[in-house]
Amino acid sequence: MIKAGIIGATGYAGVELVRILLTHPEAELTAVSSVSFEGQTLSDIYPSLRGIADLILGDADEVIQKCDVVFAAVPAGISEDIARKCVQNGTVLIDLGADFRLEDPQVYETWYGKTAPEEALLSRAVYGLSELFADKIAATDIIANPGCYPTSVALGLAPALCNGLVSADRIVIDSKSGVTGAGRKLTQNTHYAELNEGFGPYKIAAHRHTPEIEQTLSILAGKAARVTFVPHLLPVNRGIISTVYADLCEGVTLEQVYNAYQKMYENMPFVRLLPLGKTANLHDVRCSNYCDISLHADEHAGKLIVVSTIDNMVKGAAGQAVQNMNIRFGLKQTCGLMMIPPAF
Amino acid sequence: MIKAGIIGATGYAGVELVRILLTHPEAELTAVSSVSFEGQTLSDIYPSLRGIADLILGDADEVIQKCDVVFAAVPAGISEDIARKCVQNGTVLIDLGADFRLEDPQVYETWYGKTAPEEALLSRAVYGLSELFADKIAATDIIANPGCYPTSVALGLAPALCNGLVSADRIVIDSKSGVTGAGRKLTQNTHYAELNEGFGPYKIAAHRHTPEIEQTLSILAGKAARVTFVPHLLPVNRGIISTVYADLCEGVTLEQVYNAYQKMYENMPFVRLLPLGKTANLHDVRCSNYCDISLHADEHAGKLIVVSTIDNMVKGAAGQAVQNMNIRFGLKQTCGLMMIPPAF
Amino acid sequence: MIKAGIIGATGYAGVELVRILLTHPEAELTAVSSVSFEGQTLSDIYPSLRGIADLILGDADEVIQKCDVVFAAVPAGISEDIARKCVQNGTVLIDLGADFRLEDPQVYETWYGKTAPEEALLSRAVYGLSELFADKIAATDIIANPGCYPTSVALGLAPALCNGLVSADRIVIDSKSGVTGAGRKLTQNTHYAELNEGFGPYKIAAHRHTPEIEQTLSILAGKAARVTFVPHLLPVNRGIISTVYADLCEGVTLEQVYNAYQKMYENMPFVRLLPLGKTANLHDVRCSNYCDISLHADEHAGKLIVVSTIDNMVKGAAGQAVQNMNIRFGLKQTCGLMMIPPAF
Amino acid sequence: MIKAGIIGATGYAGVELVRILLTHPEAELTAVSSVSFEGQTLSDIYPSLRGIADLILGDADEVIQKCDVVFAAVPAGISEDIARKCVQNGTVLIDLGADFRLEDPQVYETWYGKTAPEEALLSRAVYGLSELFADKIAATDIIANPGCYPTSVALGLAPALCNGLVSADRIVIDSKSGVTGAGRKLTQNTHYAELNEGFGPYKIAAHRHTPEIEQTLSILAGKAARVTFVPHLLPVNRGIISTVYADLCEGVTLEQVYNAYQKMYENMPFVRLLPLGKTANLHDVRCSNYCDISLHADEHAGKLIVVSTIDNMVKGAAGQAVQNMNIRFGLKQTCGLMMIPPAF
Repeated sequence: MIKAGIIGATGYAGVELVRILLTHPEAELTAVSSVSFEGQTLSDIYPSLRGIADLILGDADEVIQKCDVVFAAVPAGISEDIARKCVQNGTVLIDLGADFRLEDPQVYETWYGKTAPEEALLSRAVYGLSELFADKIAATDIIANPGCYPTSVALGLAPALCNGLVSADRIVIDSKSGVTGAGRKLTQNTHYAELNEGFGPYKIAAHRHTPEIEQTLSILAGKAARVTFVPHLLPVNRGIISTVYADLCEGVTLEQVYNAYQKMYENMPFVRLLPLGKTANLHDVRCSNYCDISLHADEHAGKLIVVSTIDNMVKGAAGQAVQNMNIRFGLKQTCGLMMIPPAF
Repeated sequence: MIKAGIIGATGYAGVELVRILLTHPEAELTAVSSVSFEGQTLSDIYPSLRGIADLILGDADEVIQKCDVVFAAVPAGISEDIARKCVQNGTVLIDLGADFRLEDPQVYETWYGKTAPEEALLSRAVYGLSELFADKIAATDIIANPGCYPTSVALGLAPALCNGLVSADRIVIDSKSGVTGAGRKLTQNTHYAELNEGFGPYKIAAHRHTPEIEQTLSILAGKAARVTFVPHLLPVNRGIISTVYADLCEGVTLEQVYNAYQKMYENMPFVRLLPLGKTANLHDVRCSNYCDISLHADEHAGKLIVVSTIDNMVKGAAGQAVQNMNIRFGLKQTCGLMMIPPAF
Repeated sequence: MIKAGIIGATGYAGVELVRILLTHPEAELTAVSSVSFEGQTLSDIYPSLRGIADLILGDADEVIQKCDVVFAAVPAGISEDIARKCVQNGTVLIDLGADFRLEDPQVYETWYGKTAPEEALLSRAVYGLSELFADKIAATDIIANPGCYPTSVALGLAPALCNGLVSADRIVIDSKSGVTGAGRKLTQNTHYAELNEGFGPYKIAAHRHTPEIEQTLSILAGKAARVTFVPHLLPVNRGIISTVYADLCEGVTLEQVYNAYQKMYENMPFVRLLPLGKTANLHDVRCSNYCDISLHADEHAGKLIVVSTIDNMVKGAAGQAVQNMNIRFGLKQTCGLMMIPPAF
Repeated sequence: MIKAGIIGATGYAGVELVRILLTHPEAELTAVSSVSFEGQTLSDIYPSLRGIADLILGDADEVIQKCDVVFAAVPAGISEDIARKCVQNGTVLIDLGADFRLEDPQVYETWYGKTAPEEALLSRAVYGLSELFADKIAATDIIANPGCYPTSVALGLAPALCNGLVSADRIVIDSKSGVTGAGRKLTQNTHYAELNEGFGPYKIAAHRHTPEIEQTLSILAGKAARVTFVPHLLPVNRGIISTVYADLCEGVTLEQVYNAYQKMYENMPFVRLLPLGKTANLHDVRCSNYCDISLHADEHAGKLIVVSTIDNMVKGAAGQAVQNMNIRFGLKQTCGLMMIPPAF
């Protein structure tokens, strides 16, 4: 059994990791920590876990020492120190935050306003988009788990960009996220009476996931990609849907696009490519590690429209983190992750 | 007092008209009809109206005969007959359906699969986007009340297109609508347990409002506009938000755009242009006739991003219909329409 | 025009008062105050009010000095001082808090943990349940506006208790409130992701409205009433519904009960007694000052079941406060309060 | 592996059974049927199941013939025939409908308006409330799976009634259910725009679960129980909460009650008795087979207040059905049922 630990176990990504790891057949949830709630049990904070996860919350160092793999779900700027200790201790780190995602330290510093991790650590890190970079993930000890929006977008565009079917430039990404993406912290715009029956965009063309998206899309396209990215906040708990608009290259048909997607994803168990004519909906992937993708064309305007949806807390955070653990520890990618989305 | 009647008073647009007309200081709700519920009272169907609107539902002919102005909220293909009778009777028709919106009968027939109204009637009709075409509305007896999506888009883009600040081509419109847009009719995708905690697009690049949007944007731009339009269904009751992406013309700054909007809308009481830096949200216009617009630029990609939001049942249907009645009958546009959106 | 002011205008009851007073034909919103947001405008806090209520928030003393009537929507323990200044200034006070509701200072101190207002002020105060105590309300300068739960319960039981049709003892009140009852303050249990898709009771048999309910029911019954009161928190913004279970007195039929309700409420415009066989629903009174009541019997167990529903922010707070202003200033009770509940 | 089949697999209880059985380690979902969708696959109806449950829907007879155990999730009046065929075929029947729940055929006929199953079959049936009647369930071939409301109430009151701590008479049960309890069938009151932001009771003192509740409580109390039962419809997808009010017997303290519950439930893995001072909430049991119970006293009125909450589709339907299969086939009760409720 893999000894797994969580640093920051009481945040939303943390507690979702708890839920997944507790039922994982090859891992054992060994230690959990929380700065805010040290000394309490997980079920004190989340009554849903009563009788299930009565572990006592300890400190981060303890988690690193006791575990083979540590998941860090902490605010930006904190992971460097955790990574250093993990490397010293021979512990694999799967970092759910952004500190190790961006290859260029300058870009990180511009968007996050923090100093990037030192080069010695940063250069060991692998961007953990499981479907795209499994080989590298298997061979590293610092895995930078992707952001939720970037996961939905990269999976939604990978076959089109890899095969040169759409322009890498002028891509419009209109994303909508459930409210758990904003975390457990109280804010006026996540106060029930103010979000309920409301909807709108935020951080328009200014969200920190923008450079992460462009970094991955550029790798896929083999040249600089440029996107306009606008996230919106949905009055639902879970899920992200990205509606992506890209210019079809001259002469490319929807059928060709569909074939490229089918080929790339046919052996990837968590990507469900919908038949042409069907439309992906956030409802159908909740509480699961699936990414549902549907493809559409606007022939009149020469656009490919991709609808890509995931559960932001599963494939967009805790689920993909466990998928990366599976890859890193030589398990089947699906191990412990075949949660079936509820029909309602 | 203007004698006002409603044909199709038990649909969602119809009952919203009831609510607005009952408190209008210069109009009197004189007659209402319904094919499905003839002989019953409005409050039999909508218990919220108990003691307020106990009018008995009659037939359409009776409504036309008794009224100075008739609002028709009926399915596609039925309004031609109503229009003919209104013309004969000297009654003003405000049609909330699509039959008279499209100038080109061929386009109507392609998208709606019905025969367009005869030329004699169609040529009398004026497209009733109150802010843009008030002079013509004041002078006609057949007003084609705009669709909800087209209203949000046209108001969102008018100053930019009229002033040549953005390209009329390659416009991406990502719209999201509350569920009342789908009406009172029962469908699986509006069944509570299936829409709740769900979200997704529908009729991608195939929604009937597409030609209506292009018709208006082309008039505004003075040349053919081309859009990609994707509507989504939100798990909220009311409201539409359109996030619109247009290419800024060479050298145009956000400030210039803002000034053009301010100039065009400064005397239009229902358009609220938000200060730069603020973002429109559907929450803030519910139950009101306002259209809130915020402007944003993605300089990196050369895009203007407009967020335009209305209550789909008010400014997107019943409210704008009454605004058009006000224009046609020489009242102030705001008469009976200054409903304040609730804060929660 | 009555000069009206609000102390505590940025809380949920305060901003609902703003919305109602701005459209009141006989009152003018003259001054508003807020401790937290002094110097800002109302629309800075509530963007829904942009262009509608751009008043600057001042301090409480200024509001008292400028106005004929002051609405106080402040936390417990603060109203005594406001009342003293209002009396000195000749200003009518309508207090939306609890400080003046309980006749017995001991009971207040036990439940609220604060010192009750001095006798000279407390004895001037009238409990402002408009339908039941209009004569006294018209003759006082300190009106204690009732709590939301007590309003729904007192109107729901008044005819039954006044006419001795049910036992005043052993009454079970199972109430459910929308989340705006908890106010604008951020708390974990009103955080969207934690309330959404959740539901449960709170302060079981320990809510501060219990003594207020018993005080009114005892007056109505002419003897000590005893209730078990359990409030629940609903994942909706607005509305309270109380399902009340009382023992029918020997031989009393549902028809007799219905007749007593009809008689008592026939001239009260805001109480809508539903016909036997219909059931009240919170959906039908939202955004209005109505109280909908339906009556049911469980003959098998000898119980009368009353369902009583109001909008907690209107009839349960701001609406009833304005109704009390109308009574106090000799206007029709309905003046400015005939908002029609939306059908959806 | 147990061969399991579902008759009526496309209703809400049916599809929830699919979800549970597909991950059950000792059962294999062998055949499914549907009258409405015969010939289609499950994932045609529920896109969430794409790639997971692509079984083709057949007919009921085929399901019976192929399986060791059949779950029937069909409308009232149909199970008798299924039961007869199961008995002939040696197949265990777990009936999720009401036909076999009531021991007295007269009571069934009065409340359901159908002829009760013949005595030879009815007498074989055991009421499948797993925690209370496991011994009998293990020994029969016709298991009448309890209704959702009755499950929440019986577990909520069993220790109090078995130990004579409360009166079996004059019990008030105020229950609230998520909308999936109303099933997949379209109705106006489950139409999104009409249920959303609404709430109210239905079938007051007239719900068909009333005799089922009284039957079980009478068995537990050892004498005739009498209840007033009022269900309400909540705008959430999943979950039932029952707030139960019972008269404490003379001299009984809350602590005594708590001890009785602790004793009865200490070895029952699906009942989570909350510590005194905590309150059960529907949010914490969603998607799980748990029943959370909290205990409260109103000393002032001499009442015990029990809050009992389950997921109506799991412990209230499909989960308990599988728990009964486990009991009947000699597996651990928890086998395949340890789903952890999500924290959000």
